[in-house]
Amino acid sequence: MTDSGLTLHTDKYQINMMYAHWKNGTADTGAVFEAYFRKLPFGNGYAVFAGLERIVNYIKELHFNEQELHYLSQQEEQYEPAFLELLRQFQFKGTLYSAEEGAIVFPNEPLIRVEGTVFETQLVETALLNFMNYQTLIATKASRIVQVASGDTLLEFGTRRAQEADAAVWGARATYIAGFHATSNLHAGMLFGIPTKGTHAHSWVQGHDSEEEAFLNYAKALPDQVTLLIDTYDTLKSGLEHAIHTAHWLESIGKRMSAVRLDSGDLAYLSKEARKRLDAAGLPYVSIVASNDLDETLIFNLKAQGAKIDTWGVGTQLITAADQPSLGGVYKLTAREREGQWIPVIKLSNNPEKVSTPGRKDVYRIIDRSTGLAEADYIALSDEDEMVRGEPLRLFDPVHPYISRVVTDYEAVPLLTRVIDKGELVYELPSLEQIRAFHQRELARFKPEVQRKLNPELYVVHLSEKAWQLKMDLIQSSKR
Amino acid sequence: MTDSGLTLHTDKYQINMMYAHWKNGTADTGAVFEAYFRKLPFGNGYAVFAGLERIVNYIKELHFNEQELHYLSQQEEQYEPAFLELLRQFQFKGTLYSAEEGAIVFPNEPLIRVEGTVFETQLVETALLNFMNYQTLIATKASRIVQVASGDTLLEFGTRRAQEADAAVWGARATYIAGFHATSNLHAGMLFGIPTKGTHAHSWVQGHDSEEEAFLNYAKALPDQVTLLIDTYDTLKSGLEHAIHTAHWLESIGKRMSAVRLDSGDLAYLSKEARKRLDAAGLPYVSIVASNDLDETLIFNLKAQGAKIDTWGVGTQLITAADQPSLGGVYKLTAREREGQWIPVIKLSNNPEKVSTPGRKDVYRIIDRSTGLAEADYIALSDEDEMVRGEPLRLFDPVHPYISRVVTDYEAVPLLTRVIDKGELVYELPSLEQIRAFHQRELARFKPEVQRKLNPELYVVHLSEKAWQLKMDLIQSSKR
Repeated sequence: MTDSGLTLHTDKYQINMMYAHWKNGTADTGAVFEAYFRKLPFGNGYAVFAGLERIVNYIKELHFNEQELHYLSQQEEQYEPAFLELLRQFQFKGTLYSAEEGAIVFPNEPLIRVEGTVFETQLVETALLNFMNYQTLIATKASRIVQVASGDTLLEFGTRRAQEADAAVWGARATYIAGFHATSNLHAGMLFGIPTKGTHAHSWVQGHDSEEEAFLNYAKALPDQVTLLIDTYDTLKSGLEHAIHTAHWLESIGKRMSAVRLDSGDLAYLSKEARKRLDAAGLPYVSIVASNDLDETLIFNLKAQGAKIDTWGVGTQLITAADQPSLGGVYKLTAREREGQWIPVIKLSNNPEKVSTPGRKDVYRIIDRSTGLAEADYIALSDEDEMVRGEPLRLFDPVHPYISRVVTDYEAVPLLTRVIDKGELVYELPSLEQIRAFHQRELARFKPEVQRKLNPELYVVHLSEKAWQLKMDLIQSSKR
Repeated sequence: MTDSGLTLHTDKYQINMMYAHWKNGTADTGAVFEAYFRKLPFGNGYAVFAGLERIVNYIKELHFNEQELHYLSQQEEQYEPAFLELLRQFQFKGTLYSAEEGAIVFPNEPLIRVEGTVFETQLVETALLNFMNYQTLIATKASRIVQVASGDTLLEFGTRRAQEADAAVWGARATYIAGFHATSNLHAGMLFGIPTKGTHAHSWVQGHDSEEEAFLNYAKALPDQVTLLIDTYDTLKSGLEHAIHTAHWLESIGKRMSAVRLDSGDLAYLSKEARKRLDAAGLPYVSIVASNDLDETLIFNLKAQGAKIDTWGVGTQLITAADQPSLGGVYKLTAREREGQWIPVIKLSNNPEKVSTPGRKDVYRIIDRSTGLAEADYIALSDEDEMVRGEPLRLFDPVHPYISRVVTDYEAVPLLTRVIDKGELVYELPSLEQIRAFHQRELARFKPEVQRKLNPELYVVHLSEKAWQLKMDLIQSSKR
């Protein structure tokens, strides 16, 4: 195992299509691909776009090294040496438009648009979807948890249950974008500057002759960072009492204990009881951390029951997006070059939701100037510009085209930004803190009804009349 | 982003506990940890152990580089410089026992046992669980699919929906261990020697003026590897007809088309119809590949409906283990050194399943000599050996200890192998092909009733009387 870059982190059919294009003399033909997903995960009202930084770094590093070329030369496809030589020279010279990380996004609108030769635009499909799908999924799941936690501190604790190492690290980053406050994963902390948190495991307590000794030894070692896990033997009878002793000992040396942590049992009851006893012991400043297979539904219910929990450690359910562990984003050809002209293309399906929307497209967020709130998204062909000039805009629902309304006093904010232009990075990748702040500003554009966790208001993504007409025309002409 | 090793791929609390042990002078105290899971995933009757190669490589590479030490020096915990110096010198000098990859394993038995100083055994917990949990989960999911596919060819197609890059690559490896035949992921192919497969996407067809031209161009480019995706426009009316033309054209140049691929619609109906028409066209050798969100239940049902599918491309549901995306493996301290003596330790819980089994333990598979089949697994304390000598063994169910039986004519095969001894690798990592073959031999030890997908027979993991008594004693003494 001498490698490893990500260039071969792709499906073999991409290489086979590149080869077939090369054999057919069409490798340099222009192509436009758009990446989008078809359905919001978790019944949420929106998704949080993430994955761009990873995608940009992947594209920047994209090249075939000798090990990879040697590997390809041994495939049953028996690629010709001249093709492998072309791969050796390969550089991505295409153009990439993307939503910014932290943006609020919706189904069936292009989140990334890739333009270039069919050779290069085809190659990047698999990795681009892999990164976008996972990171957007986790940012969206985290956003639901942030929504119900209403200001409580949120810690990402999922590494041991994540789907391998990359998921732990990039997942932690996605949760931070959505508003989580820290992660337990030190690698993610080092790579991205995310604050990290951690205390001790049950094994710390088991490794001592008594729980009291274990707590005291921990407090002596890290007196400024004492959070004690109190459920190794018996949460209230043993753990909490010993934690209170430790807190008093800390006071005797002029320090304050940070928190106790509950990791099993009835968190509503235990937290209320612990709060009462901590307060009675003169320790109102000691906060309560809870963990144990938490998700947005459990946190919502615990809060409704009056649980006295200040900090939530969220692991498995978040880092795997357990109730829907994949986003299902796709990457579809929407236009191609033919004899120097661009022609829009469509993918049909027996399933109406799977029929793609043809043509090179842009997306605008229609902001009502009187409220500052997002009204709807609007997909238009790239050569349309009436929304940029602020002309009255007819919004109709592409699913129910007979329903429509006209908006006049609006601003049309483009969702897609040019990130890579003919192979050159022309976008300054924001810092993670900037992304996180941007996400908060984005959320503030949406009514609470769109943001709520259960049965959110449907936010509609509209098609321009021209884009809709083009789709209808191509469906008709394909049936001929 | 200059890094990146996996040394900091850990939870911060491990470092905090290591620091606290160092501060308390107990860093070199001996400890025994055991990794296991508590519940079989997917309602399956067994799990397929995987992840060891990744764990071994991780431990071999474990060292703190300057970037990592600098990062740690800036934490709010304010670790003392002498501690960071100790980390700079760190090498794993412990001992690791493990089940072999491809082994059939069960809940509540140690799959990995790590012995050494508490300092080093604590550090490896997070990454070890992360790797074991994911790879074992996916190998188990894949094994269910292999079971229902009854000899059909199985392709792993999940990369774009995997939870980031590592999951795609290590997941592909896990599916191959369990009996899958190939993956679409070229990186996994290169790293592990897994056969790779791939044809073309809808975009190939959309990128041509007609489907017929698209198929012909693909066949010209790769005449020995032609599998055509026939659902871009209309599967039977257009795609299949054009594929048949292409197959006849291939025959005219002395070649044979491999397959057609169905990726949407009613796979039972379409495959039967396609089979009929291919046969009628003199193409009985053209096989049928199907994909589209398949899992073991869909494949089972399609086969029951008489679907004529030879090869199954399985993606999202497999690579994310969608119906249960985490295994939940844990890593528990079972014994520790105190004043030169080893003492067993227990972790209690209000939840009886979560009470750990104390003591340094081994696991034996009890093979009935008359049938060659596995009868049960048997967990004993490491100093017990009556099962090695073949003495009559009383097996009782730890959940229902009043039920028991005695086995006599058996062989006791140890599940755990010494892999690392005092920091030295003493185990020859088998090749992936060897692991795959070992897995088949392992499966052959189990009755079909244990292997079936739905409501499998319960295979019992027994505790030796000594281990059971120790557990009872520690529960009692903890309550004092």
